[in-house]
Amino acid sequence: MTHIAPPPARFSINQMTVKQLSLPELVEACGRLGVRGVGLWREPVAAYGLDATAKLVRGAGLEVSSLCRGGFLTALDPAERATALADNRAAIDEAAALGTDTLVLVSGGLPPGSVGPVGPVGSKDLAGARERVADALSSLAPYAASRGVRLAIEPLHPMFASDRCVVSTLDQALGLAERFPASQVGVVVDTYHVWWDDTAPAAVARAGAAGRIHAFQLADWVTPLPAGVLLGRGQLGSGSVDLAGWCALLDSVGYAGPVEVELFNEGLWAGDGVALLEDTVARAAAILGPGGQPHAAT
Amino acid sequence: MTHIAPPPARFSINQMTVKQLSLPELVEACGRLGVRGVGLWREPVAAYGLDATAKLVRGAGLEVSSLCRGGFLTALDPAERATALADNRAAIDEAAALGTDTLVLVSGGLPPGSVGPVGPVGSKDLAGARERVADALSSLAPYAASRGVRLAIEPLHPMFASDRCVVSTLDQALGLAERFPASQVGVVVDTYHVWWDDTAPAAVARAGAAGRIHAFQLADWVTPLPAGVLLGRGQLGSGSVDLAGWCALLDSVGYAGPVEVELFNEGLWAGDGVALLEDTVARAAAILGPGGQPHAAT
Repeated sequence: MTHIAPPPARFSINQMTVKQLSLPELVEACGRLGVRGVGLWREPVAAYGLDATAKLVRGAGLEVSSLCRGGFLTALDPAERATALADNRAAIDEAAALGTDTLVLVSGGLPPGSVGPVGPVGSKDLAGARERVADALSSLAPYAASRGVRLAIEPLHPMFASDRCVVSTLDQALGLAERFPASQVGVVVDTYHVWWDDTAPAAVARAGAAGRIHAFQLADWVTPLPAGVLLGRGQLGSGSVDLAGWCALLDSVGYAGPVEVELFNEGLWAGDGVALLEDTVARAAAILGPGGQPHAAT
Repeated sequence: MTHIAPPPARFSINQMTVKQLSLPELVEACGRLGVRGVGLWREPVAAYGLDATAKLVRGAGLEVSSLCRGGFLTALDPAERATALADNRAAIDEAAALGTDTLVLVSGGLPPGSVGPVGPVGSKDLAGARERVADALSSLAPYAASRGVRLAIEPLHPMFASDRCVVSTLDQALGLAERFPASQVGVVVDTYHVWWDDTAPAAVARAGAAGRIHAFQLADWVTPLPAGVLLGRGQLGSGSVDLAGWCALLDSVGYAGPVEVELFNEGLWAGDGVALLEDTVARAAAILGPGGQPHAAT
């Protein structure tokens, strides 16, 4: 067995990073490596069974740092909106059952437009779509609070603005969150999505001061981007992001929660999952100290 | 011959949109269709010959709305920086020879980092790279002014921040431009790059009031993005951007210059270039009125 350093205490592995591992394989590997947190996704949890997953992770003493994901709240069609809200309430219930206090929300893209007399209408309205997200939050946030779950709005990189998430910056996400109590709605800081943004540090400071950083995720930015751009999240240290700098920034604004590594990368998925987890732990340890604070020297 | 409406008066076709056309073919088609402006690129101009190009477009009565492109000013290595500055002075001279007052600048990405004792250093410093762009402008802007050329800083979509352009928003581009006289340095507003940004309209207003909108380019946003994402610029009306809204915004802040259509799209390049130009003219006419102002009804 490879001898590797223990992971930083606040390190959490998002299960999508090691998608090739089954839930029991992931839990076993976490136990052996000393990883104490996992971020889960609804689809693999449902496939294994919600109660079975909860029992498995609880039995292993693992903390569930977040559940991905609710959201997709931009539909114009009333029936689609009702379906989306019901699905989000189900996601909140699942988060509670898994023992995590954080549900990550990906807001959704521009809805299909209707075709009016002068061509398509409705589908190009980013501001309107963002308002529909806010509207949905006003019914979801109290429901989540009643289940002990916080909603965490994740701004996605602007390259996803049309088809996945109309919330593109931390400032926008925080603007939405600030309409609700911090205990109910906050933001996700994901380095992959916000690293390029010179206004993000000020938003991080504002979110930190208000206790609205509900999740912190790490991935690096590597190019060239793959077709469709979804599966381009880079392994820590392989790209352009000053990850230690972002960790130090989060630390400086008082964030003391999990540091979750979330990669979607077909190249990484093609290899051995346990080796990938070990490599990811080692890379996280090179960025973060044992306590989870960034190394002073980096 | 297909009967099509004349192009809006301020319409300009960027030659990359119809890359499959040679310069004489492009100039001939523009003359036949009533297109009065072209945006040129240095490489095809050099291939045809600078003086020959200038003579060709001047003889046809075409206005050169812009020359693409200078920039790539982020190198750390002193020799590379000197080479980049010399290349930009050459680009300024070429713009002057072609009779255009506008040189588009794509700032450049993060430079390769050097490897220090704790790993790569220097290559993750976006803020530093932006400052090197400002530094280069301080020597290039007066030179450009002496040739009657304005520098137009183009913010590129954040998905290009690492490998092509560290200037990602209009606000950043304008912040750089504002260190210099408006007659020397301004910005490019390109809908493809800025459409997602809710802070862009305020930057457009600030730039318009100061006379710093030196170029305006249209392309639509379509998904899925192709691998490498460079050749994904969508034909007008095929995507998510409210192009008529952007044209109205530019109009409202006093912009009265060319409206240039710039697409890079392998699918469009695979077809007939003249048919593509005709289709592009028709689509621009559906967005803009005959004078180049947006239709009131859209």
